[in-house]
Amino acid sequence: MDTRTAAGIDFGGTSVKIGVVQGTKVVDSAPPIATQDYTDAPSLIEDIARSIEMLRSRYPDLAAVGVGVPGFVDLPTGTIHNLTNVAGWKMVPIRDELNQRLGLPVHAENDANAMAYAEWKLGAGIGFNHLVALTLGTGVGGGLVIDGKLARGAQYVGGELGQTSIHYAGRVGAYGNRGALEDYIGNREIAAEAHRRYQESGQSRQMDQCSPKHLAEAAGKGDSVAQEIWDEVAQMLSCSLVNCCFLLNPEAIIIGGGVAKAGPVLFDPLKKHLWSQLGDPFKDQLQVIPAKFSNEAGILGAAHLALNEA
Amino acid sequence: MDTRTAAGIDFGGTSVKIGVVQGTKVVDSAPPIATQDYTDAPSLIEDIARSIEMLRSRYPDLAAVGVGVPGFVDLPTGTIHNLTNVAGWKMVPIRDELNQRLGLPVHAENDANAMAYAEWKLGAGIGFNHLVALTLGTGVGGGLVIDGKLARGAQYVGGELGQTSIHYAGRVGAYGNRGALEDYIGNREIAAEAHRRYQESGQSRQMDQCSPKHLAEAAGKGDSVAQEIWDEVAQMLSCSLVNCCFLLNPEAIIIGGGVAKAGPVLFDPLKKHLWSQLGDPFKDQLQVIPAKFSNEAGILGAAHLALNEA
Repeated sequence: MDTRTAAGIDFGGTSVKIGVVQGTKVVDSAPPIATQDYTDAPSLIEDIARSIEMLRSRYPDLAAVGVGVPGFVDLPTGTIHNLTNVAGWKMVPIRDELNQRLGLPVHAENDANAMAYAEWKLGAGIGFNHLVALTLGTGVGGGLVIDGKLARGAQYVGGELGQTSIHYAGRVGAYGNRGALEDYIGNREIAAEAHRRYQESGQSRQMDQCSPKHLAEAAGKGDSVAQEIWDEVAQMLSCSLVNCCFLLNPEAIIIGGGVAKAGPVLFDPLKKHLWSQLGDPFKDQLQVIPAKFSNEAGILGAAHLALNEA
Repeated sequence: MDTRTAAGIDFGGTSVKIGVVQGTKVVDSAPPIATQDYTDAPSLIEDIARSIEMLRSRYPDLAAVGVGVPGFVDLPTGTIHNLTNVAGWKMVPIRDELNQRLGLPVHAENDANAMAYAEWKLGAGIGFNHLVALTLGTGVGGGLVIDGKLARGAQYVGGELGQTSIHYAGRVGAYGNRGALEDYIGNREIAAEAHRRYQESGQSRQMDQCSPKHLAEAAGKGDSVAQEIWDEVAQMLSCSLVNCCFLLNPEAIIIGGGVAKAGPVLFDPLKKHLWSQLGDPFKDQLQVIPAKFSNEAGILGAAHLALNEA
């Protein structure tokens, strides 16, 4: 493991979190920056750079800066294509902007790839050469390790597990695509479905009692509606993961993000649906593993990507 | 391109075809061997070896032998896991068996991978680093090139595009998997669906008039049932290909096999369904290309794999 010190930036739609990383630890951090307080990219970049300079005054051996963003990054130029949830971020050369301000090597990457990289290099995926990593939250993000390499594709935008379809004639998604996984098992979609089911079963519940967190508790206590919901989430998720297995024959699937915190009420039916749909060479050595890192995965991954690829 | 001479074996459920390959040409071939005449592996291997010795007497500079098989191959040992359509082929170390008989380097590979390799190295995929290649016939086979390498996965069984799901609760397939693409758009499934539709529309047709070949002709002449069938085949196929695009972000998709001979009646609606479901970075430079090779793809790919990987 790389033991040098680096800064990692987890650029979210709500806040930008910046931490100082040593090994697997976030040893220091700057106050989060509220993303929506900014209407354009330059002023937000300015404040990100200022936060990093502040951290650098405490860690003068900062060797590189990595940033994970909720959107596509053109790797050779370090340019963000577009952040759909943040105003004013279209074709922003964030790598060069930060590099010019800080004089440090900078690496920019899609946030799910950064998370996958953290799990692969430091977390649940150490030692594997073929990995599927995903994060279940408001959306579903993914990152792939193929033949011992982060696999990004021709325009560096691959790994979008949440956009893969579970039904060729299903719901219409963000790109006009049909049946995208995240349009079925995103946080909000799970809650809405649970709300509808409770109502149907005559046990009406407030929407805020239908979050994945509440549903995990309820399922753990034997609530049959909640258990049914988790089984269906598992079935839908297994569809996309079985597809990854048939295509990529990974050694392990690593699952993180808020929804994955449900634990056995999700993982048990998920393994059941996976194992019942895969033949021998595919499931022989397949492991399904909870992610090691939680909220800090993005910062860790971005920092280590910067140390190794900037 | 490798210009040395090699033998390629296309091991099919009906017949074993063996050719001598120089560059992109099959310059000589042995009489096909009827697979079903044999009840065990050793006697069939014996006759394959004999055919190759015969070809070698005409081409003494034969440098290597490649074999593509309709099943999974364990790459490090060159062992066939199982051929579901051929009796007596379970855990057969075909590479070593042929090598011992012939004294030549031998490479064994899944047949769809061999086809993908032929298109990548010699055919429609030359120069690409990120490819999805598929062959549409009785089944749907696939092979992937990722970051300039044939991507096989941890147990060398990846690329199984035909087993990927287009519906999480769809038809139950060979492995217990739900909604496998080839269970919808395999040769026979297309014909059966067409037969049903013609009957429904009051224009009953014999089953043998419902083959993809007949449907392509009919659609070309404006037959609305046939056109509808092709549009649906394209929609289903686009589901699996869109998934490949979101996961792997390829530069090109290469489509071969008997069903692909339908030409524009398949490719036109396919492109429509693909383009309507992909966002910008994914479709910007994406090409959808008919395969260059037809029946000879397997022999060519196996021979060139042997020259380069045996």
